[in-house]
Amino acid sequence: MPPQAQARQRLLIKGGKVVNDDLSVVADVYVEDGVVQQMGPNLNLEHSAGLLVLDATNKLVIPGGIDTHTHMEFPFMGSRSKDDFYTGTKAAIAGGTTMIIDFAIPQKGCSLTEAFDTWKSWADPKVCCDYSLHVAVTWWSNKVKQEMKSLVQNKGVNSFKMFMAYKDIYMVNDEELYEAFSCCKELGAVAQVHAENGELIAQGAKKMLAMGITGPEGHELCRPEEVEAEATQRAITIANAVNCPLYVVHVMSKSSAEVISNARREGKVVYGEPIAASLGTDGTNYWNKDWAHAAAYVMGPPLRPDPSTPGFLMNLLANGDLSVTGTDNCTFDICQKALGKDDFTKIPNGVNGVEDRMSVIWEKGVHNGKMDENRFVAVTSTNAAKIFNLYPKKGRIAAGSDADIVIWDPKATRTISAKTHHQANNFNIFEGMVCHGVPLVTVSRGKVVYECGVFNVTAGEGKYVSRPPFPPYVYKRVRQRDQIKANENDLAAPTSSSSWVQQSIHN
Amino acid sequence: MPPQAQARQRLLIKGGKVVNDDLSVVADVYVEDGVVQQMGPNLNLEHSAGLLVLDATNKLVIPGGIDTHTHMEFPFMGSRSKDDFYTGTKAAIAGGTTMIIDFAIPQKGCSLTEAFDTWKSWADPKVCCDYSLHVAVTWWSNKVKQEMKSLVQNKGVNSFKMFMAYKDIYMVNDEELYEAFSCCKELGAVAQVHAENGELIAQGAKKMLAMGITGPEGHELCRPEEVEAEATQRAITIANAVNCPLYVVHVMSKSSAEVISNARREGKVVYGEPIAASLGTDGTNYWNKDWAHAAAYVMGPPLRPDPSTPGFLMNLLANGDLSVTGTDNCTFDICQKALGKDDFTKIPNGVNGVEDRMSVIWEKGVHNGKMDENRFVAVTSTNAAKIFNLYPKKGRIAAGSDADIVIWDPKATRTISAKTHHQANNFNIFEGMVCHGVPLVTVSRGKVVYECGVFNVTAGEGKYVSRPPFPPYVYKRVRQRDQIKANENDLAAPTSSSSWVQQSIHN
Amino acid sequence: MPPQAQARQRLLIKGGKVVNDDLSVVADVYVEDGVVQQMGPNLNLEHSAGLLVLDATNKLVIPGGIDTHTHMEFPFMGSRSKDDFYTGTKAAIAGGTTMIIDFAIPQKGCSLTEAFDTWKSWADPKVCCDYSLHVAVTWWSNKVKQEMKSLVQNKGVNSFKMFMAYKDIYMVNDEELYEAFSCCKELGAVAQVHAENGELIAQGAKKMLAMGITGPEGHELCRPEEVEAEATQRAITIANAVNCPLYVVHVMSKSSAEVISNARREGKVVYGEPIAASLGTDGTNYWNKDWAHAAAYVMGPPLRPDPSTPGFLMNLLANGDLSVTGTDNCTFDICQKALGKDDFTKIPNGVNGVEDRMSVIWEKGVHNGKMDENRFVAVTSTNAAKIFNLYPKKGRIAAGSDADIVIWDPKATRTISAKTHHQANNFNIFEGMVCHGVPLVTVSRGKVVYECGVFNVTAGEGKYVSRPPFPPYVYKRVRQRDQIKANENDLAAPTSSSSWVQQSIHN
Amino acid sequence: MPPQAQARQRLLIKGGKVVNDDLSVVADVYVEDGVVQQMGPNLNLEHSAGLLVLDATNKLVIPGGIDTHTHMEFPFMGSRSKDDFYTGTKAAIAGGTTMIIDFAIPQKGCSLTEAFDTWKSWADPKVCCDYSLHVAVTWWSNKVKQEMKSLVQNKGVNSFKMFMAYKDIYMVNDEELYEAFSCCKELGAVAQVHAENGELIAQGAKKMLAMGITGPEGHELCRPEEVEAEATQRAITIANAVNCPLYVVHVMSKSSAEVISNARREGKVVYGEPIAASLGTDGTNYWNKDWAHAAAYVMGPPLRPDPSTPGFLMNLLANGDLSVTGTDNCTFDICQKALGKDDFTKIPNGVNGVEDRMSVIWEKGVHNGKMDENRFVAVTSTNAAKIFNLYPKKGRIAAGSDADIVIWDPKATRTISAKTHHQANNFNIFEGMVCHGVPLVTVSRGKVVYECGVFNVTAGEGKYVSRPPFPPYVYKRVRQRDQIKANENDLAAPTSSSSWVQQSIHN
Repeated sequence: MPPQAQARQRLLIKGGKVVNDDLSVVADVYVEDGVVQQMGPNLNLEHSAGLLVLDATNKLVIPGGIDTHTHMEFPFMGSRSKDDFYTGTKAAIAGGTTMIIDFAIPQKGCSLTEAFDTWKSWADPKVCCDYSLHVAVTWWSNKVKQEMKSLVQNKGVNSFKMFMAYKDIYMVNDEELYEAFSCCKELGAVAQVHAENGELIAQGAKKMLAMGITGPEGHELCRPEEVEAEATQRAITIANAVNCPLYVVHVMSKSSAEVISNARREGKVVYGEPIAASLGTDGTNYWNKDWAHAAAYVMGPPLRPDPSTPGFLMNLLANGDLSVTGTDNCTFDICQKALGKDDFTKIPNGVNGVEDRMSVIWEKGVHNGKMDENRFVAVTSTNAAKIFNLYPKKGRIAAGSDADIVIWDPKATRTISAKTHHQANNFNIFEGMVCHGVPLVTVSRGKVVYECGVFNVTAGEGKYVSRPPFPPYVYKRVRQRDQIKANENDLAAPTSSSSWVQQSIHN
Repeated sequence: MPPQAQARQRLLIKGGKVVNDDLSVVADVYVEDGVVQQMGPNLNLEHSAGLLVLDATNKLVIPGGIDTHTHMEFPFMGSRSKDDFYTGTKAAIAGGTTMIIDFAIPQKGCSLTEAFDTWKSWADPKVCCDYSLHVAVTWWSNKVKQEMKSLVQNKGVNSFKMFMAYKDIYMVNDEELYEAFSCCKELGAVAQVHAENGELIAQGAKKMLAMGITGPEGHELCRPEEVEAEATQRAITIANAVNCPLYVVHVMSKSSAEVISNARREGKVVYGEPIAASLGTDGTNYWNKDWAHAAAYVMGPPLRPDPSTPGFLMNLLANGDLSVTGTDNCTFDICQKALGKDDFTKIPNGVNGVEDRMSVIWEKGVHNGKMDENRFVAVTSTNAAKIFNLYPKKGRIAAGSDADIVIWDPKATRTISAKTHHQANNFNIFEGMVCHGVPLVTVSRGKVVYECGVFNVTAGEGKYVSRPPFPPYVYKRVRQRDQIKANENDLAAPTSSSSWVQQSIHN
Repeated sequence: MPPQAQARQRLLIKGGKVVNDDLSVVADVYVEDGVVQQMGPNLNLEHSAGLLVLDATNKLVIPGGIDTHTHMEFPFMGSRSKDDFYTGTKAAIAGGTTMIIDFAIPQKGCSLTEAFDTWKSWADPKVCCDYSLHVAVTWWSNKVKQEMKSLVQNKGVNSFKMFMAYKDIYMVNDEELYEAFSCCKELGAVAQVHAENGELIAQGAKKMLAMGITGPEGHELCRPEEVEAEATQRAITIANAVNCPLYVVHVMSKSSAEVISNARREGKVVYGEPIAASLGTDGTNYWNKDWAHAAAYVMGPPLRPDPSTPGFLMNLLANGDLSVTGTDNCTFDICQKALGKDDFTKIPNGVNGVEDRMSVIWEKGVHNGKMDENRFVAVTSTNAAKIFNLYPKKGRIAAGSDADIVIWDPKATRTISAKTHHQANNFNIFEGMVCHGVPLVTVSRGKVVYECGVFNVTAGEGKYVSRPPFPPYVYKRVRQRDQIKANENDLAAPTSSSSWVQQSIHN
Repeated sequence: MPPQAQARQRLLIKGGKVVNDDLSVVADVYVEDGVVQQMGPNLNLEHSAGLLVLDATNKLVIPGGIDTHTHMEFPFMGSRSKDDFYTGTKAAIAGGTTMIIDFAIPQKGCSLTEAFDTWKSWADPKVCCDYSLHVAVTWWSNKVKQEMKSLVQNKGVNSFKMFMAYKDIYMVNDEELYEAFSCCKELGAVAQVHAENGELIAQGAKKMLAMGITGPEGHELCRPEEVEAEATQRAITIANAVNCPLYVVHVMSKSSAEVISNARREGKVVYGEPIAASLGTDGTNYWNKDWAHAAAYVMGPPLRPDPSTPGFLMNLLANGDLSVTGTDNCTFDICQKALGKDDFTKIPNGVNGVEDRMSVIWEKGVHNGKMDENRFVAVTSTNAAKIFNLYPKKGRIAAGSDADIVIWDPKATRTISAKTHHQANNFNIFEGMVCHGVPLVTVSRGKVVYECGVFNVTAGEGKYVSRPPFPPYVYKRVRQRDQIKANENDLAAPTSSSSWVQQSIHN
């Protein structure tokens, strides 16, 4: 089918229960030109030749998932992650995810724009669904600042990630963080952090190796969860100093999640992103006697040995203290992992997740009664769309929205396995997990790209999605606060000062 | 205008920014038969004779407020609250509120159904906007249980309030609470509590009087905030024992709000309702040297002398830890308050709020940068509609919703004063507060009932709104949890037991 | 040896490291007439005929343990606890404990004085070491109040326990609690509570049985830890309302311990008593497949299935948030436990501990590096002596103190087992635990009553120890607070009120 | 009197209530050669010529205060603190403090030993009471490490302070902190931190000045309390990574105090030191309209505008979450402060306190009923002696202890004022505070140095006090933890790893 034809594809999803984050309602959904045109009970449409009708009776019709955090074909730690933008997005589609946001990551001293262009050049010809790119800030200079501005204004980037870990590689110090946050704030971008104290990790790793601990368990032992919580607290404090909204990627521990939740209680604009791995499994795997098994779970920050972690994070995700979910999908096969056979610091960091995220969250979240289907949609899709300024084009099924839609069977089950998954990797960290909640059909921009196990995808069919700055969901409060402070400052100095105090005292 | 005519009234609100809880968008809203028919940019409608066009350019168009907690013409403490269902709902309308939920409260030993009927008979001929009725459970027996069932099934009641205070009058003990919660759960109703330890209040009041403290400050001193926090904790624990959703009315203190927030983090289904008074003023007023001033703030639970309380509660309301807002509007004038001139325990408890709630929350919440306009809509309208199963008929502006709409000027200011307010009372606890955020036009079921200071209301025009049981927003998770537990129980006993443990361990 | 002779027994403990709660120092300890006469390095004494010399080189010399919570020969749940005052105190001595405080518990409606006399008549002829008696208040009336007064003034009782559980048997309601606390406060006694919500337990038990859960795991499932935390919070709130110091017996859960710790941060005078069982084992045992094993751990409140509980409690004990340790020693053998074979509610509640407490705390606390030897002495002996007004007669090794002394080998280990223990029971909940820290010699009032496995005890040799009211350690602050409030109240009313507020605001 | 004679001075303090941290008891205290020789009721001594008898009837006899934190004649911010070691220690004595610990602070790149020698050369000829010196580590190198070792082994230093603030002047980064903590741990020293995020302060100060805020309030606004809390959390995390005990100097805020308290609950070995200023006054003074008044309160970290701070800190000090008290005494007069007339960053940081600490804590702590007299002794003297390894020579009144003793009148009051104080400064931050608790007589090493307003001091009479490494109070647990870990590590690797996990899981 030529692209022209495709664009005109007409689709009717009949009789399903359409689930948005605020409401579930039985309704038909009519799609044309990749966009939802109508939604309502018993739509009366002429069943012309071009109309594809999907029966969704007794099924849920949900917005396609948005995975906020992937690393496809990422050159990292002397290797390159196995899933490229083709296999990665294909796997995503199979799991009910219709958009990913990957990271363009320049080396220290290198151009952010070039990194962006490079990643885009990798992705464009391969992606099977829509995607976008966060950009990492791994060093600081005036040039970096200029490039951030340009990326925001010309390239549709509205989020930048800073690493507080990976010392000497990606890590930035507090001064650089401050500058980067200030710049994000000015540009209307969301500041993201990988929150771990890189100095402590470096020292801890040295110590573990000196003690003769070389196996995967050393990876966790050298960076226990307080190392994550400390950095999270620090990032929040610095971001707050410049009134910059903050997004903490891959929340892996109870203590870090608590730091975020407490900050939110104080009114800080901060979002936490747990991932499929931290919600679905735990760090006891690092003590598995099979090295390959243990190594397969190595990622940074690590999964936590406290087995109550996933349930705890899911509670906070259900409750609203945590906001969105990604995967940090960054797969390495066993041969790649073996680079660290004798030294855990050399095991390439990364796990799978892009395919299984939706099912894992359904099983642990919805099936277990921790959240309902509407909150499920919020945390897998809607909130990501809101935070990254894609809403309601993405993240909602409504007239005018992109037709990224999944027909979801909440009662069917499937068993996750590397044998049957579609990722390029030969291991699955959720191996054997029986999940209720199965994606039957995935629709990307109005095209059925996956149906009952059969793909209908074309590499490069997905589109790069620009994200405008100043997402209202994130920035409305932030700007109002600046406004208020500015007004106070315009008033006579003594009064203004004293009202500042009042504000801080009165909370 | 005859009702028939009214029903056909056609209304076009043009050019405003329509604010729902998820999104703000510039759009026209077209209303017919009291219901929103269309919404979208530049609606193209024939401007026939019957079409009333309102220009909302540069204004916000928001769902009418829902006040979850009022006591109109309430016979209480030897007096009767001043605002009846006519003046009360009229004042509501002036403030941008288009629905109230009042309480039918039987005496101990008396019929719930009769109480409901009585209250309804008071309200029906007088209300100027829609309303509904919570019913109080002030004692326990099989008859009460039967009446609860009947009220749910035949009268559209889906919420019952239990008092943990007012010893010997309304207070129920833990056993009765347990029974009432169990019954709510079975019926699909929301259990509500007035959370204060009534025993401690009784003892505390005696002690204060014995010490010679007879003034309004004694009201707070005899029931400090830990008395509220204790009862809140207890109610949550008991509700959780029967997996019953809980709604804590009038959250007045930081400690009580924290108890609720912490319970939510643990996954408990509990909602907290701060009120205009606790969000907009504080308990230092009890120490005002003017007795009449101090007495005017007496309500139960009391406002707190800690001046950081309102800001703290607003943060939690912004953040999602608290959910909805009411007012506990229960006005008494100075002569009524004087019943307690020599003994604070005899001061009729109650304050105003139904008219000013929206402005107070806008000022302290939105104007101060603590929440954005969407969260404002959520906490003043949408969430109430969801919790009490009125959504999306109420709480949202969308095709199919009731046309309860307010045109809101976010930049205009007004100064709250008893001199200008529309309540029957001669005192206003927010006297002198300058509020940004002014309701220009209020539309109730498609009729313009208030415009720029001019009312167009008819007593009895409002309707009693039935609320079906098992609100999905509240009950989906609750039922799924029961389901999961039941399944576990069906399995062989030893396994089931051990998986219970896992659940509790893993949180 | 006739008592007369015994009294004159002279004892020199040479070369040990004397450990008090503030300091460890190598010193000799010289004892005469049951009292420490001198302490210092290299005491120069004439080695006359009557002088018994014990070499404690490389050993610790510590104050004998005080077990704050035992139930010897307690008639309970249709049975009677196995260890009587003879076997119980003998076992205590073997474990390094030289004083126990048991509970005299009247039935509802019965005389407290008679209960006290009864228990004393049981104990006096049998005890092998010193003891005292808490008295329970299981109902309320003027007579109870009079008896409390008389017990304090004439019988040396300075602590009363109220049950918030055991509905219809021992449980008192909030009003009774309030009265009892008020009375304790007036008399200078320490109010103690068994903190569990008895109503929820009763309902929970019914529910479990109805679900067909009859085994020991039902015991925990019907009273999860929030049932304990709720009551703890409630007791603290009520006690604080009358400014009465509170002592929470058997702290079994993390949440209850947190409630206590938080209250202490707010300045409340409250003490928490974890017990050997909650510090040394956990509630996973209730799911043991061997019914007899599982039933042996049944006690109220139950041990918690969360395996991190003991470590958590030990941290708080080390840190000062929890204060003292008892055991709730109340042993039943398997035949007695079998009363509840088909219904967990009939399993007599109780576990062992009086013999093993010291070793368990040493192992889990000191050997694990959570506390040092001085804090060990504080939590096993000194703090109990301070709280119950026995200090420095008990709880310290110093000139003038009772010679209740243990020579402790911190490096030796022993394995706890029912096969070797000295309790009357045929089961030990710490079976198989290897403990560092072994009592070599136990001295009671200057007499060597146990040495390397050999007893030298006589039934009735121990003494009842009177405890005067108003323990300074507990009551100094309490009285000062009353004083301050009274002064404020004497001042002009308006000022006093406003300073009350200040106080509550400023914390 | 020649020194020789003085040493033989004999002193009898009769009839007072001797207050140690564990007990108050009426007793006489007999002193000879600067050391307590006997203590007991009604000591029977021959009243020979040389015996000075002081009547302490109805008075308290307490260990002299130890001020853990002073900066006498400190060259700082272009000025030098006004109180030198003479006036400073004289003022201390007048207030009931008999020992101070000052800080030797090298410039970056300079020798620690030289700094120590310099400070000692300033102090030795001037001090009127005993003193010791902490040493600051302001940079890192192998030479610094060697000097630390030498200071510990040869100079009696057992504590080192690292600054996390004062960027470019004293601040060290995380890597340096890690090294310094590791070194302290190895040497058995206590690591101290000034916990504020120096980067945020630098940026904040720039921002304030850019906004035109140049007055003293800018000092607080540029470093709000979260800047302190963040650094506190970070320091604790880093210290814990090397199992090094940590001492947080000048705890100024509720949030920082909470961070410390929470860490202690988790078993971390960390001590918090609030100071007279943070316990007795607050940061609202920065908004005082009189610049000189406001500037006089400038210190780092700043006092907090939240007026509930002092009460909160006092509660934690009473409860044991905070441990000791200092003053950060570093006085500048108004002319010196004026260096920052147009730029708050140039106002020399520092306040008084060394003279008034004891009275302020008595008033706010003991008189207010937050702590008793024994806890007062603990937090003003005993705990400092324990932490810095001076106990029981200092910090206790007992045979063998240094005769640093104060006769304290708990009922007398005095009004603090710059007009009557003995410090060199012309301003007192506690001006006008009426304090109960007045030192009547101060005895230093057995000599009456102050009596009812009259001094009997000689410059240089005080002695430098060496402090041996590895204070048992601090290090016993720390070493045991290392021991346990080492043992685990000696075992087969897999087991050891798995027990590490257990430990972290089980807390």
